[in-house]
Amino acid sequence: MNKILIINGPNLNLLHLRNQEIYGSQSLEQISKDCSEVAKQIGAEVEFFQSNIEGEIINQIHRAITDFQAIIINPAAYTHSSVAIRDALEIFKGPKIELHLSNIFAREDFRHHSYISPVVDGIISGLGANGYTTALLAINNMIK
Amino acid sequence: MNKILIINGPNLNLLHLRNQEIYGSQSLEQISKDCSEVAKQIGAEVEFFQSNIEGEIINQIHRAITDFQAIIINPAAYTHSSVAIRDALEIFKGPKIELHLSNIFAREDFRHHSYISPVVDGIISGLGANGYTTALLAINNMIK
Amino acid sequence: MNKILIINGPNLNLLHLRNQEIYGSQSLEQISKDCSEVAKQIGAEVEFFQSNIEGEIINQIHRAITDFQAIIINPAAYTHSSVAIRDALEIFKGPKIELHLSNIFAREDFRHHSYISPVVDGIISGLGANGYTTALLAINNMIK
Amino acid sequence: MNKILIINGPNLNLLHLRNQEIYGSQSLEQISKDCSEVAKQIGAEVEFFQSNIEGEIINQIHRAITDFQAIIINPAAYTHSSVAIRDALEIFKGPKIELHLSNIFAREDFRHHSYISPVVDGIISGLGANGYTTALLAINNMIK
Amino acid sequence: MNKILIINGPNLNLLHLRNQEIYGSQSLEQISKDCSEVAKQIGAEVEFFQSNIEGEIINQIHRAITDFQAIIINPAAYTHSSVAIRDALEIFKGPKIELHLSNIFAREDFRHHSYISPVVDGIISGLGANGYTTALLAINNMIK
Amino acid sequence: MNKILIINGPNLNLLHLRNQEIYGSQSLEQISKDCSEVAKQIGAEVEFFQSNIEGEIINQIHRAITDFQAIIINPAAYTHSSVAIRDALEIFKGPKIELHLSNIFAREDFRHHSYISPVVDGIISGLGANGYTTALLAINNMIK
Amino acid sequence: MNKILIINGPNLNLLHLRNQEIYGSQSLEQISKDCSEVAKQIGAEVEFFQSNIEGEIINQIHRAITDFQAIIINPAAYTHSSVAIRDALEIFKGPKIELHLSNIFAREDFRHHSYISPVVDGIISGLGANGYTTALLAINNMIK
Amino acid sequence: MNKILIINGPNLNLLHLRNQEIYGSQSLEQISKDCSEVAKQIGAEVEFFQSNIEGEIINQIHRAITDFQAIIINPAAYTHSSVAIRDALEIFKGPKIELHLSNIFAREDFRHHSYISPVVDGIISGLGANGYTTALLAINNMIK
Amino acid sequence: MNKILIINGPNLNLLHLRNQEIYGSQSLEQISKDCSEVAKQIGAEVEFFQSNIEGEIINQIHRAITDFQAIIINPAAYTHSSVAIRDALEIFKGPKIELHLSNIFAREDFRHHSYISPVVDGIISGLGANGYTTALLAINNMIK
Amino acid sequence: MNKILIINGPNLNLLHLRNQEIYGSQSLEQISKDCSEVAKQIGAEVEFFQSNIEGEIINQIHRAITDFQAIIINPAAYTHSSVAIRDALEIFKGPKIELHLSNIFAREDFRHHSYISPVVDGIISGLGANGYTTALLAINNMIK
Amino acid sequence: MNKILIINGPNLNLLHLRNQEIYGSQSLEQISKDCSEVAKQIGAEVEFFQSNIEGEIINQIHRAITDFQAIIINPAAYTHSSVAIRDALEIFKGPKIELHLSNIFAREDFRHHSYISPVVDGIISGLGANGYTTALLAINNMIK
Amino acid sequence: MNKILIINGPNLNLLHLRNQEIYGSQSLEQISKDCSEVAKQIGAEVEFFQSNIEGEIINQIHRAITDFQAIIINPAAYTHSSVAIRDALEIFKGPKIELHLSNIFAREDFRHHSYISPVVDGIISGLGANGYTTALLAINNMIK
Repeated sequence: MNKILIINGPNLNLLHLRNQEIYGSQSLEQISKDCSEVAKQIGAEVEFFQSNIEGEIINQIHRAITDFQAIIINPAAYTHSSVAIRDALEIFKGPKIELHLSNIFAREDFRHHSYISPVVDGIISGLGANGYTTALLAINNMIK
Repeated sequence: MNKILIINGPNLNLLHLRNQEIYGSQSLEQISKDCSEVAKQIGAEVEFFQSNIEGEIINQIHRAITDFQAIIINPAAYTHSSVAIRDALEIFKGPKIELHLSNIFAREDFRHHSYISPVVDGIISGLGANGYTTALLAINNMIK
Repeated sequence: MNKILIINGPNLNLLHLRNQEIYGSQSLEQISKDCSEVAKQIGAEVEFFQSNIEGEIINQIHRAITDFQAIIINPAAYTHSSVAIRDALEIFKGPKIELHLSNIFAREDFRHHSYISPVVDGIISGLGANGYTTALLAINNMIK
Repeated sequence: MNKILIINGPNLNLLHLRNQEIYGSQSLEQISKDCSEVAKQIGAEVEFFQSNIEGEIINQIHRAITDFQAIIINPAAYTHSSVAIRDALEIFKGPKIELHLSNIFAREDFRHHSYISPVVDGIISGLGANGYTTALLAINNMIK
Repeated sequence: MNKILIINGPNLNLLHLRNQEIYGSQSLEQISKDCSEVAKQIGAEVEFFQSNIEGEIINQIHRAITDFQAIIINPAAYTHSSVAIRDALEIFKGPKIELHLSNIFAREDFRHHSYISPVVDGIISGLGANGYTTALLAINNMIK
Repeated sequence: MNKILIINGPNLNLLHLRNQEIYGSQSLEQISKDCSEVAKQIGAEVEFFQSNIEGEIINQIHRAITDFQAIIINPAAYTHSSVAIRDALEIFKGPKIELHLSNIFAREDFRHHSYISPVVDGIISGLGANGYTTALLAINNMIK
Repeated sequence: MNKILIINGPNLNLLHLRNQEIYGSQSLEQISKDCSEVAKQIGAEVEFFQSNIEGEIINQIHRAITDFQAIIINPAAYTHSSVAIRDALEIFKGPKIELHLSNIFAREDFRHHSYISPVVDGIISGLGANGYTTALLAINNMIK
Repeated sequence: MNKILIINGPNLNLLHLRNQEIYGSQSLEQISKDCSEVAKQIGAEVEFFQSNIEGEIINQIHRAITDFQAIIINPAAYTHSSVAIRDALEIFKGPKIELHLSNIFAREDFRHHSYISPVVDGIISGLGANGYTTALLAINNMIK
Repeated sequence: MNKILIINGPNLNLLHLRNQEIYGSQSLEQISKDCSEVAKQIGAEVEFFQSNIEGEIINQIHRAITDFQAIIINPAAYTHSSVAIRDALEIFKGPKIELHLSNIFAREDFRHHSYISPVVDGIISGLGANGYTTALLAINNMIK
Repeated sequence: MNKILIINGPNLNLLHLRNQEIYGSQSLEQISKDCSEVAKQIGAEVEFFQSNIEGEIINQIHRAITDFQAIIINPAAYTHSSVAIRDALEIFKGPKIELHLSNIFAREDFRHHSYISPVVDGIISGLGANGYTTALLAINNMIK
Repeated sequence: MNKILIINGPNLNLLHLRNQEIYGSQSLEQISKDCSEVAKQIGAEVEFFQSNIEGEIINQIHRAITDFQAIIINPAAYTHSSVAIRDALEIFKGPKIELHLSNIFAREDFRHHSYISPVVDGIISGLGANGYTTALLAINNMIK
Repeated sequence: MNKILIINGPNLNLLHLRNQEIYGSQSLEQISKDCSEVAKQIGAEVEFFQSNIEGEIINQIHRAITDFQAIIINPAAYTHSSVAIRDALEIFKGPKIELHLSNIFAREDFRHHSYISPVVDGIISGLGANGYTTALLAINNMIK
């Protein structure tokens, strides 16, 4: 059974309090449940993780090397500043998708650059909460 | 029944001849068939269009305003140079997804900038041929 | 009798569908009629052309070399990307006015740069549909 | 009766001494007379002002708030350096046209950027002395 | 017998009307004839193509994949703006030479950058009409 | 009673050891006491927090959403690198002041840019330890 | 008794007419009165000056060298363009605070750079009309 | 007899109060006297002017067109910001020398760019007060 | 006896799993042992620390102020993003060497800039695992 | 008889030792012989020069002014750094061709800029050793 | 007796052959003689040196450390590229003047930057051949 | 026996005269002796070379190809300007270390970029004279 780690970066724990025009109205808890359900349907297992601390996200990516076949990561604000998460992802050899709830290219200039994109396989941006399940279905196909 | 226009930009007609490490080995014809099949399963209708001429792509987007509910566009090279396609897409009010077979952020610098991204709803990049059906499923949910 | 070619770039055929705050509410057809009327009053002849294809706009500029005394061009999106239209205009030796319905300097950064401006005589921007007749009156005076 | 203030920036008092290839051969006095005549024909009133001092131009714009319906401004060199004139113009709510005798985009790079353009309604550049009367006719139509 | 396609970009059809100090005085027809003659002498066959439409140039490059051993391309203005022609050339695996009549490095800054150069084998610039026959001799040697 | 959270970023715990010409000679403990005293005088309550860990600062901002009316933040080095703290502050809807002991604009270039400034109400920089009590008085007036 | 000069740059005389969302609704006269009152309470004397002319602001700074102990300056638009005011302030050796009613970092890019900041002691930005009295209290403490 | 106008920009009236390491210890009055003396020796006449107001400097340059054969200008801070002074100098056709007391290239980056330099004949920088008499001797030779 | 702290940044705990062409094949444990051995030979004491959390690295640098004579730091990815570690190192007054296993100047552009370099004494880059013992020998000589 | 100087810049003496994928496998001696042979066939005389010292290359260009009708120069690394060689070439009035063995536009960014190109007539790049004889034939035609 | 070394950079040996509009018509020999004469008049001794080789210019500057009191240097093209000459000049502690015949700020962009300017005392540019004797008089006064 | 060439760039011959705060107080002769001694201890042979002429440094690198196993190079000022030395080093296949006495990253901006770094194995910067012997020990281990 495919095991997929879904990592969420800073401030996503308060998703339901953020600008709804940009992020939609779903809470991270609801998204997590949706993912678990979809995972069941496709015979995969997902683990959902969120942290505001860059180093803890790195620790989870390290753990994934031995425990998971694939990573979906919504790096949130660390997308634009974290070389360290990029380096961690580069060590992980399975399929990796970078995910953004909002269309980061329709926002401030500094959000147009991602340190993460060059080291993942695919990027999904702007599909809102549906992006999570979309990514889940796509990455499940990518696991050999 | 939802009608979705899938537009393909320059050189995608020779997809099967391009660098397979970057673009995969499927032909556009095969991708078109896969899309039609998925469309049937979800009760939608897709039309598949390819052109090497910027202005003809604009003409198709114009046609979509009255004839389609949603657009999936792989602008290929025009991603990085066409303000005109951007302006055309801005007129179309239904859901729009920008699609790239390859991970454009893992390639040359000039491919990191898209004139298209700020005017679409979502972006999917790097999922290969599967990106088309992934986009199809996602956009079908976005049509109200 | 002075013959003046008025060239309109991509997406202007759908002017009436574009953002009315930026472009106003008139259709290109109406503008064309207004120009013909004004032309009559000042004893000139105008031909009105629109295309979404960069190369066809170039073909028209080439045709103007032998058939017209002056060119008014609203290059729309090609303003910002077309070196080819610039080169074509450089060959045409009569008076040339670059025209924009909207104030391009009050919009996105990439719209502040025009490849066309350095090779025309005058630029009129932001006067809306009136810009066309304003340009017509002005260019008629410039024909020697 | 519409009252329109025409403001002229630094060195325009010596227009007749400047490079005639760039600025044409008319003096500012002649232009002022031409404007008055055209104003009469269209039933408007114009006041013509010139100063080399940035702050005095600002003072005139302030005066226009209560005394004029529209402003035509040829900011000359202050186009490229004066945030203060921009801020003053932003306070004035009537129609505003920025005017340049020469085609500033065919000159030195630093003349391609205008602090003024984003806060006016329209821009006319490169029509020489005729630009003044062209602007006058255009702005008269813009006054509601 | 080696078959070589010579592609000419926008405005080259009016070569004889362009600035003679920059482009020389020969017409494209004359250049075409010169190339045919030289081709005969070296036992090669050339086809000469010109279009103002980016997409048609791409179509010709596609056709060359099966029908020609080598491409000489003078992309003219598209040199500086066309990622699409670059991508098309990348698919063609035979010898490719980029050609410019004028020395593009002695002209405006924006003409110093070529999207085409990194994907061709050789570049010849500034040799005027002689550049065509020079390129022809050179590329004929490069065909294996 | 107004509750105000004062957050201090990395290295401020060693304030008394840092360059006294830049930071002054007071310790963070002394500043904390001064703030408590002033708070008493104006009938407010302050909590003083310091951490070297970006994610813990984010956690505190999250806590403030429910427990405080206002935030004063001296982000120290994270001013220049943390999009994550910016995003956290954007969620907090009460008054926010960004504070710097030193005049960051009189130091290295990279200290001139703040990710934080665009999402706070006010900025106070260069007033030394007095900046804290100045900010406290100012923000207390801003709480409605 | 401490004498403090408060200098106000261009367009601040029309503060009450400017965008109230950005500048608040108080007039400069009201702010001047508030400052006088606060000055009385703390046993200081303030003089309030406004000019739209860069050179007159410089003249006032020169006068302050002999007649005042401290300067509070709201350079308004000259913040971003005046090296001359910067140089004048550098000659004045007493405490200096740069003041902005609005948060200049939440506005257009060109407002993010201040020629003034590196030569003053402190900067206060975004506190609205309260910024004046806040600055007054702070600078009074800085006079030795 | 050659008449030479020596123009001094903002803050030079307080030269004796400025940083002596950068500007030396002489007052502008002393420099003016030295120039008069040297002028006498070489049979020329000098007029010495200083203003803090950009527009008044422009007025003086305008006056020089009819009344003087040459201009020496120390534009001080306006060196780096005044397109208007540049344009005024361009109208003056006699010899022009730009003068700086300090070596502006050994100071802040923004002082390395001069709007004035491209329109004068010669530049003298860093020779301190001696620069004035050096410039006087040099320009006297340049008057035909 | 000299006490030297060796700090290792993010992802170095998985050194043995990273790209061996870039980082070599030794594990961090092996490097730590090598350092201890060399330390013994030169009569010094080393402590070896690794963390993925920026703030914990700062905490260790703070601890070094009282407990160590010198610091060797391999900041890994934080080299390019951490102003906070830079500020912490600036407080530490003993000898400091920045160390990189790989030649960071032969890698991606963003790895060419180090926030750390300007505040350390020496930099050693590209010597692989030997860099650690090389740094150890060098820094031991630098302790006074 | 036409005399043509062929100048070769730094490291070309070791051409046979350099990266053969980039430079091909021929030695400079062989190329020199090929050129002599071709020269004989076309009734010209060539002199072949190589130096690693920028100043000696300049000396040769100076010598060419009186002794040669044309220059072919492969400036190698000095292409990208030598203003001095550019200035020397500007003095030489006969035909000049800049030559590169490799396609410099397919290599590192800093190799895309040439100080030499704007002052020569033609540029040939990427044709390998054949570029020398190609240039020889072309320049012989350019000598009047 | 003051000994002054006058160093001339690359291509100045052919001054009389260079563009006379930019450099004037005098030869370097004539300038050398003029300098010797002026030197005699002011009781100084000059040595005149020219080389096209960067390293030999450095050698001369080194020699000046023990043998000369002052240096006048016209670095010509090396102005814009030579950090090595800059470093050599930094070692020399006597007065140094950088000299240019032409006004380098009225020429190509790359000539606006000088590596030399920040390490000399004064700069004289654009005075033509007279600049040499002007510099000689000025530097003689600077020798203590 | 390993033979190692130590190359020293411009101005290092006068090391003892340069700024001692930046370069320390040792002469190059002393450093050379120290290196010879250390070489003896480790059974290697060193040759010490210095030149101010870029081309002679290149010649030495060429000589090293056949005569030495490793190169230590302190390119001094040529670090920042010499593509030619870079190209020469690229031909040499043995171990290469780039060495700087000072910490070049704590100095002027233009010293932060090295053309040399990407083509050497290791870089040592800021260790003063000890950097030489440190490099010697390190490179001796790198010779296979």
